[in-house]
Amino acid sequence: MKYFLFTFICTTMCWGQMQKEQLNLMPWPKEISNQQGKFNIDKDFAINLNAPNSERLTIATTKFLRRLDGRTGIFFKNGFALINHPNSTVQINVKSIAKLDLQQDESYQLTIAPNQIIINANTDSGAIYGLETLLQTLQNTNDSFYFPTLSIQDSPRFRWRGLMIDAARHFMPVDVIKRNLDAMAAVKLNVFHWHLVDDQGWRIEMKSLKQLHLKASDGLYYTQEQIKDVVQYAGNLGIMVVPEIDVPGHASAILTAIPEIGSTPNKKYSLERNAGVFNPTLDPTNPKTYQIINQIFDEVCPLFPGKYFHIGGDENEGKEWDANPKIQKFKKENNLATNHDLQTYFTMKLIPILKKHNKLLMGWEEIMTKDMSKDAIIHAWRGPNEGLKAGESLANAAKNGYQTVLSNGYYLDLVLGIDTYYNTDPINKELNLSSEIQKNILGGEATIWAELVTPLTIDSRIWPRTAAIAERLWSDSSVNNLKNMKKRLIPVTDRLEELGITHIRNKGVILRNIANYQDIQALEKFSNICEPLKLYTRNKGGTEYQMYSPLTLFADACTPDASDAEEFNSLVELYNANHANNEAKSKIINQLQSWISTHKELVQLQKNAPIISGFLPLSKNLNDLSQQLINKLQDKSYDAELAKKMLENCKSKDYADVELAIIPGLVGLIQ
Amino acid sequence: MKYFLFTFICTTMCWGQMQKEQLNLMPWPKEISNQQGKFNIDKDFAINLNAPNSERLTIATTKFLRRLDGRTGIFFKNGFALINHPNSTVQINVKSIAKLDLQQDESYQLTIAPNQIIINANTDSGAIYGLETLLQTLQNTNDSFYFPTLSIQDSPRFRWRGLMIDAARHFMPVDVIKRNLDAMAAVKLNVFHWHLVDDQGWRIEMKSLKQLHLKASDGLYYTQEQIKDVVQYAGNLGIMVVPEIDVPGHASAILTAIPEIGSTPNKKYSLERNAGVFNPTLDPTNPKTYQIINQIFDEVCPLFPGKYFHIGGDENEGKEWDANPKIQKFKKENNLATNHDLQTYFTMKLIPILKKHNKLLMGWEEIMTKDMSKDAIIHAWRGPNEGLKAGESLANAAKNGYQTVLSNGYYLDLVLGIDTYYNTDPINKELNLSSEIQKNILGGEATIWAELVTPLTIDSRIWPRTAAIAERLWSDSSVNNLKNMKKRLIPVTDRLEELGITHIRNKGVILRNIANYQDIQALEKFSNICEPLKLYTRNKGGTEYQMYSPLTLFADACTPDASDAEEFNSLVELYNANHANNEAKSKIINQLQSWISTHKELVQLQKNAPIISGFLPLSKNLNDLSQQLINKLQDKSYDAELAKKMLENCKSKDYADVELAIIPGLVGLIQ
Repeated sequence: MKYFLFTFICTTMCWGQMQKEQLNLMPWPKEISNQQGKFNIDKDFAINLNAPNSERLTIATTKFLRRLDGRTGIFFKNGFALINHPNSTVQINVKSIAKLDLQQDESYQLTIAPNQIIINANTDSGAIYGLETLLQTLQNTNDSFYFPTLSIQDSPRFRWRGLMIDAARHFMPVDVIKRNLDAMAAVKLNVFHWHLVDDQGWRIEMKSLKQLHLKASDGLYYTQEQIKDVVQYAGNLGIMVVPEIDVPGHASAILTAIPEIGSTPNKKYSLERNAGVFNPTLDPTNPKTYQIINQIFDEVCPLFPGKYFHIGGDENEGKEWDANPKIQKFKKENNLATNHDLQTYFTMKLIPILKKHNKLLMGWEEIMTKDMSKDAIIHAWRGPNEGLKAGESLANAAKNGYQTVLSNGYYLDLVLGIDTYYNTDPINKELNLSSEIQKNILGGEATIWAELVTPLTIDSRIWPRTAAIAERLWSDSSVNNLKNMKKRLIPVTDRLEELGITHIRNKGVILRNIANYQDIQALEKFSNICEPLKLYTRNKGGTEYQMYSPLTLFADACTPDASDAEEFNSLVELYNANHANNEAKSKIINQLQSWISTHKELVQLQKNAPIISGFLPLSKNLNDLSQQLINKLQDKSYDAELAKKMLENCKSKDYADVELAIIPGLVGLIQ
Repeated sequence: MKYFLFTFICTTMCWGQMQKEQLNLMPWPKEISNQQGKFNIDKDFAINLNAPNSERLTIATTKFLRRLDGRTGIFFKNGFALINHPNSTVQINVKSIAKLDLQQDESYQLTIAPNQIIINANTDSGAIYGLETLLQTLQNTNDSFYFPTLSIQDSPRFRWRGLMIDAARHFMPVDVIKRNLDAMAAVKLNVFHWHLVDDQGWRIEMKSLKQLHLKASDGLYYTQEQIKDVVQYAGNLGIMVVPEIDVPGHASAILTAIPEIGSTPNKKYSLERNAGVFNPTLDPTNPKTYQIINQIFDEVCPLFPGKYFHIGGDENEGKEWDANPKIQKFKKENNLATNHDLQTYFTMKLIPILKKHNKLLMGWEEIMTKDMSKDAIIHAWRGPNEGLKAGESLANAAKNGYQTVLSNGYYLDLVLGIDTYYNTDPINKELNLSSEIQKNILGGEATIWAELVTPLTIDSRIWPRTAAIAERLWSDSSVNNLKNMKKRLIPVTDRLEELGITHIRNKGVILRNIANYQDIQALEKFSNICEPLKLYTRNKGGTEYQMYSPLTLFADACTPDASDAEEFNSLVELYNANHANNEAKSKIINQLQSWISTHKELVQLQKNAPIISGFLPLSKNLNDLSQQLINKLQDKSYDAELAKKMLENCKSKDYADVELAIIPGLVGLIQ
């Protein structure tokens, strides 16, 4: 049988070419060449480290061995990294230990020969990337596992490759953070931005201002020991942690604990339960505000060894400032014409406080005014949704001489399709930025705002889409073939499971709950063509869901890039290109029929599962249209007007916060 | 439709009776009466606490609300417990805060009326049990959720209802522990016994003897902050934590760090990677041994507020003692005739060290000798496997005046069927113990030894079987109908998912890995009739698996009580009772055919999934026999001798550490 397979392969294409095609590396490396050959994996597989004593590399090697033996089922004799074993099959050669400051050398070289694997890197971080790449090359026959022989030279395009997790709106326990750090490392991201404070919660244990976590967290916060643990865990993956304490706006939580530094005198602030932009704002005219911030930063800064500190600074509409005569007076006295100027006055005061701790100030783009220090890092987030051109604010920051990071286009909580994210390049070619200005663009950062995600669902919002963003930030801009990326994404998506990412497994958990533990096959089928409402159309006005509302609903089981939708939409395109394509036609009919039978099953299920009532009408709409379309395709009685009405019903976004992802296909069949 | 349903129900049985039948409570309460009525759940559902300020109850109420809205999808207006709201629909009345010392009053009273729910309890712990029972009563129609009206009086049979988790053999991170604590609370267990030290690892961060966690944990240990966090988390669930530091045997880890207190002079000890009973043992004749233990206990005891401290004391074969002339001499000088006496000498010295910290010494049954203090708690673990009668050592301890806890019969790592565990009663009626002696029996404890479990699989070994043990320990001994228990167990098993227990979801993770991310349906079907090898037949001699060997194999996906086996075995019984039963016959044939087609699919899958090779022969054996048996049932050509041979092949335990759980059914068809 093996002989047969080999023959088949060799007659269709050359071995080397096939291997390169099969390699599902992501992010795609800078240079790669491969030959016809295999490094076979057996129980003698062993890794020797020629490196300065690096905890990071030791841990990474152990994890690599566990993942490799987990996948292959091979019982390795050596379960840990070796030292002084020059005859081991894998040799890792490292010169120095990386300091995680964005200046570290992240390059590596990976060579797989039939009898030896060598990873060379200047730093241990580079070597860890080499191990991740090596693992991604794993191949198998029907009875063995091997690495294909090849040679890779690799280094990143951007220095800042980040993921931001909002732990304020919904608290994310340490294990959620850690598994996502592991996944980040697997796709070579190197900055974890931890959004720790917002209107809905203060998430840091404080020793000196205990009221912050005691009064403003609902008991859900990280102890300082946990923060240190996460920072160390991240560091061992080559990831720098950037904390964010959002000021002066988004301050409901801070002011719940310390109302005296709020901009409305004598106001009793309370934790915000809704989503949106709220008024509570620190008083920039009150010396006590700076004293408190000073005290907070004195305690929080030492927890984070990295040199960046994010102070938020976004979405302050200044309503409390406008309403407070004392603040108005202060503005006049200090020649601060606008609230924007007043905020700059505020932000500038934070710079020396942070400098004391050797930290650079980073903030969302609103902090950028003509008076803002050029030392500040500008985090660009606004774009078409906010009436700006994509990449415009990033470009402005870069032109103004600021180092800058892009998040516009990378907002995962908008639950857009992966194409959007993949096509967003920190360097927008249309803007024709000079290479000098491009140097100010540090990179980009995916962001997951947590109004509508919980520990149960957050992974399915972050992954796999963040792997595509990671490739955009690591690989050359010429690596941009969507179809090829999607092919390579499949195994990357799957293998995230071994890092504990729950994007696949938790879907079943949610569906079983919805089904009241009846069989979930029909629910699964329907969920594979539904997507949660995009942009901010779920949770209209921010008040439909409170932070304690259930997120165990159908929309939470559905994901962007609904798995069965693209195939159907493509089938219809194929069929419309050539109506004589009977194979496509019959597949389409099968698909339409399957939705009719899925609906029947859902009707049955619903009898003992009330939550299904919420989206059963949408399934009914699809059922009705499917029947019409089958009639049309089979040249039976078809009512075009009725079908159009039914299509409109199928476009509804009124049911259970989901929408059908097969509308393009349905439209294609009607036209 | 609703009207129709109601009519149907009322004509078949009375409403009250049906409800009681439908209630899937576990553990089953002491007294229960119910009436025809419903308490409907809507967004106004709110819980008011009339209680002393109890963090425990506040947290439990919040968790209850999240679970209830997670299940129902209802958006409650109040996401947290209320105070001073006498008109809230749920009233919880509590007199005092429980101290977790086994003396606390755990009783509660739950009354559900159409318009109000009342929980009365002397302590907050009792009230929390009331909330768990309330959640278990949840019912639904096709479009709403409700609690049936009823009245429950409840309190436990035994005071000690424990679960032991071994975090030494495979380290279990904090999140694994926490989710299992939540699950324990859901079935009213109240003692978490944390096995923290063994030959394979020391899992406690030490401030004074850092070498212990630095040299003897592979970097996998709990920080003291994490331990405090777990203890507090458990306490908030009404669970006492009992730590175990296993001495003087099982000491490879301790001696790796501190070899000078070992019983073999100048030996270089190292962490054990295999499973079994090993020689490294503390030297009871060396004063430094006690000094070190003193130092350890001084640091570890304050982390655990409970009054019990487990010192292990098991499986010391004394081989190092026999080989050391100095120790032999010491025995003679001190009139210690046997190693058992020497161990008692050792253990007695620990009692005052623990007393200093107000702790009682607990140990495995080997610590019980004539000279052992009656203050010690005896943990009975040996039974038929060790040549003793079931319950005998527990009875001996009780007769000798020791307080005692049963674990023999509750060893989850033996992966036996649930019947065995459920039928094990701490009070073995056959032994005719007087009620005075019975008083010494504190209760029982399920144990999961972790040689062959990892964070990925541990939940599927603990659950759902531990729920049955929990019922044995809580409910009256007359609650012992296996069939009824299994029926009630189903929803309890399902709902463990909402607490994060991974027993269902992680099966898919393992199977997807085995299938190399091809479709897993066939694998799932086959896994539903296979069970991991029982007792200690997996990992023969303890050396097939090292602690770093892969546990992502087929045996790890399979569970005891294979889900499809019981039905098949019963079908065959039914058919054999009456060969004219054509329905049973045709179901059996269908089942046999499905195994034939499953095998075909597995053969296909295996072409791209090497791990399947390991158990494909077993599937082949079943395929062959199934074909023969179909022939027999259909009166076609059948070779009885050949079938017998094939049956023997199906009984094989040689493939991938699993066995077929349908052997009784297959045997039934052959005879």
